[in-house]
Amino acid sequence: MIDFRPIFLILGILLTTLAVMMLVPAIADLVVGNPDWQVFAVSSGVTLFIGVSLSLTSRTGGASLSVRQAFILTTMSWVVLTAFAALPFVFSQLDLSITDAFFEAMSGITTTGSTVIVNLDLAPPGLLLWRSLLQWLGGIGIIVMALAVMPMLRVGGMQMFRMESSDLSEKALPRAAQVAAAISVIYVCLTGIWVVLLWFAGMSGFDAVAHAMTTIATGGFSTYDASIGHFDSVAIDIIITIGMVIGSLPFLLYLMVLQGHPSNLLRDSQVQWFLILLVAVIVVVAGWLWLGNGKAPLEALRFAAFNVVSILTGTGYVTAGFDKWGSFAIPVFFFIMFIGGCAGSTTCGIKIFRFQVLYAAARTQFHNLAQPHGVFIPYYNRRPIPEEVIGSVMSFFFVFFATYTGLAITLGFLGLDFITSISAAASAISNVGPGLGPVVGPEGNYSSLPATAKWVLSIGMLLGRLELFTVMVLFTRSFWRA
Amino acid sequence: MIDFRPIFLILGILLTTLAVMMLVPAIADLVVGNPDWQVFAVSSGVTLFIGVSLSLTSRTGGASLSVRQAFILTTMSWVVLTAFAALPFVFSQLDLSITDAFFEAMSGITTTGSTVIVNLDLAPPGLLLWRSLLQWLGGIGIIVMALAVMPMLRVGGMQMFRMESSDLSEKALPRAAQVAAAISVIYVCLTGIWVVLLWFAGMSGFDAVAHAMTTIATGGFSTYDASIGHFDSVAIDIIITIGMVIGSLPFLLYLMVLQGHPSNLLRDSQVQWFLILLVAVIVVVAGWLWLGNGKAPLEALRFAAFNVVSILTGTGYVTAGFDKWGSFAIPVFFFIMFIGGCAGSTTCGIKIFRFQVLYAAARTQFHNLAQPHGVFIPYYNRRPIPEEVIGSVMSFFFVFFATYTGLAITLGFLGLDFITSISAAASAISNVGPGLGPVVGPEGNYSSLPATAKWVLSIGMLLGRLELFTVMVLFTRSFWRA
Repeated sequence: MIDFRPIFLILGILLTTLAVMMLVPAIADLVVGNPDWQVFAVSSGVTLFIGVSLSLTSRTGGASLSVRQAFILTTMSWVVLTAFAALPFVFSQLDLSITDAFFEAMSGITTTGSTVIVNLDLAPPGLLLWRSLLQWLGGIGIIVMALAVMPMLRVGGMQMFRMESSDLSEKALPRAAQVAAAISVIYVCLTGIWVVLLWFAGMSGFDAVAHAMTTIATGGFSTYDASIGHFDSVAIDIIITIGMVIGSLPFLLYLMVLQGHPSNLLRDSQVQWFLILLVAVIVVVAGWLWLGNGKAPLEALRFAAFNVVSILTGTGYVTAGFDKWGSFAIPVFFFIMFIGGCAGSTTCGIKIFRFQVLYAAARTQFHNLAQPHGVFIPYYNRRPIPEEVIGSVMSFFFVFFATYTGLAITLGFLGLDFITSISAAASAISNVGPGLGPVVGPEGNYSSLPATAKWVLSIGMLLGRLELFTVMVLFTRSFWRA
Repeated sequence: MIDFRPIFLILGILLTTLAVMMLVPAIADLVVGNPDWQVFAVSSGVTLFIGVSLSLTSRTGGASLSVRQAFILTTMSWVVLTAFAALPFVFSQLDLSITDAFFEAMSGITTTGSTVIVNLDLAPPGLLLWRSLLQWLGGIGIIVMALAVMPMLRVGGMQMFRMESSDLSEKALPRAAQVAAAISVIYVCLTGIWVVLLWFAGMSGFDAVAHAMTTIATGGFSTYDASIGHFDSVAIDIIITIGMVIGSLPFLLYLMVLQGHPSNLLRDSQVQWFLILLVAVIVVVAGWLWLGNGKAPLEALRFAAFNVVSILTGTGYVTAGFDKWGSFAIPVFFFIMFIGGCAGSTTCGIKIFRFQVLYAAARTQFHNLAQPHGVFIPYYNRRPIPEEVIGSVMSFFFVFFATYTGLAITLGFLGLDFITSISAAASAISNVGPGLGPVVGPEGNYSSLPATAKWVLSIGMLLGRLELFTVMVLFTRSFWRA
């Protein structure tokens, strides 16, 4: 039997935090005199009540969680927080259906960035702030989870990132909780810096805050239907492009930089691969825009850099209808959706380190074929990769594509056209945001999809965000029989 | 240094065989008085000359090949045979370009079935026969290779199918060469049976021969632009549907059946998975055609069965424009392209046994997550799968999708639209035949593609047919340095 009390206790604490956070948009609406402040106040009250009740009734003696409790907690917390985070969307003057509200909240918390709200430009500020806040909380949430929970769960190769004291040479921060706190401070500071930068670049204070949060969280919610294209500003494009890259690197390395080891950041092979890949794709797409589409070189670079970074990292901002950039751009944007950023960042997708492990394993295969009597070992970051990690990553890759196929076919069954089905499925499982094509593409949104499709996509976002196995293992018999 | 003499010797023998085969269409053309018989005579003469010269000048004492020689031979033989097989296409009255001729020959030998020839209905019989013959030879060629060469090369998990004496309980056929000979006889007999069946069902003798060869080879070349849809016959549809399934099963098992162990065929887990999957997809698609598209139930079943079997096994016949069957059918047909049939059959694609291995490994992962202290071992066909095989299959899966992505993006770069790029790339690497969409879809063909795209697709077909690693290993440094 699994003891649910510690799970409910933590869930209660998380809900209480969420309730407090709901006061932020309430205040924003109050300031501008929008009656929607009551929506947030009521939602906050309901959430607070449930949260506090849960915490108080679930007092427990034990301090630590078992692995199975951690699995249940992880999935439950993401689902339950989404349900409560959806309340303001249901009650607000936008009057979203329960489906739409849940979709929007899931898209927020998972830092996906797909939206069902049209006319964002006219939406009340509290609601816009709430969307940004959800992504921002989801971003730091996933970083902390990748740091503290995922390695313990040994999901999809994340056990490689088990924190060893040797990783943090100062030994001043021995425990995960302290590391998590330090990284949260870094997260807040980075967000603050981007608020200032965006504000200097010409955004209003409100827009600067909203976009700084969704930039560092690689979330992609904007306060305008035209996304960042609305501003049409070179400075803003550059600032956000860099911000999305910052949000895609392992946050643990920032801590090391602050501890006086800046070389750790650039010597990390995951960071190297990520940056090289990013530059390569940007150069190729910019070249295509310049030589193939007749854009001026610098303009081509600006648009290619912004949109490639946004889609590859799974942020989901757009500054152009990149699916109208011709035959080459569409498959490129389709396939880079799957990539994502580094482990321990706010991004989703398959992630760079998995490609490194898969590449190293395939390379070893080739060596073994060429020299059957040699012994070859795959390396990651100058260390041999344990067999267990390779198997774990490879199974992740297979389960990822099997799940993706299931999602895409289901969307087709629900009547979505081919490009919408296959790109929306990719966008959901990788937490990107926009898909391709006229419906869910960079210039469209998800409002017109049938309700069932929105639920399917919500499940896809959740699965992708929690590295698939974390959720799926709950549906195996052996989990409950153990 | 690698000794090329035994490689050239075998290459010479294969070319000589090809030259002899060219006399078959020459005779066919002579019979109907078509002047194209000279084309085949000349091509045969050239091929014979080169083949005999190679054999005679490459006499060698040693009998067996090293693994590296086998790698070189495998890739070289497929490329060189394709080049010579293309000669009749270049010289014939159709006057194909070198690109088109090579593409058509590659599509034939790899049993893909994509064609660049329009107005097949008016093409000379010798040429049509040559296309069918190429697929038929390519079909038996790949079976023999999967039996005798691939397990030795340890490519993509094929080492699981290393022949053990225990596999053939009679022990009357101990050696690979004898098994290959026995299976070739079975192949010829099956083809003969299908000739008779198709002829009884109303095909002309010529069409029956041409289609029996491309059915058992799961090749898919037809003698009509409308493919099997031309006949519009329920009997022919059923006969060919069954024939494609027969061509997708492991031929070694047929030998066991003949040796008095029919239960081996149905107890083989690969066969079970394949048949269950096939039936499931057919039922779902037929249901969609019936309930969603308003076709009569039996008609829905007929069209669903034929086209699903054709695309899933990578044959490539069509009896309907299945990409016009609505939103559900397109992603289904897109994703089943990748599947293929069983190992040791004439099919290509990822193949059923790899999905079984990947599934077994992922299942083990889930068990390990749920019960961290348990020990779980993946099984295939009631035997534990060696670690080496799992790694091999998983790397295959990764390299397969990496290559696929490269092909699709390259086609986009060459100006092909999105659905053409991603479906033609899938169709090539899995040796299917038709893609999706108006250009290369079931009702189109490959003639209008730019020449570079045809070469890219030819490379894709070759890579897919030879299980990727066999070709790619030749381009690694360690292969030549060993």
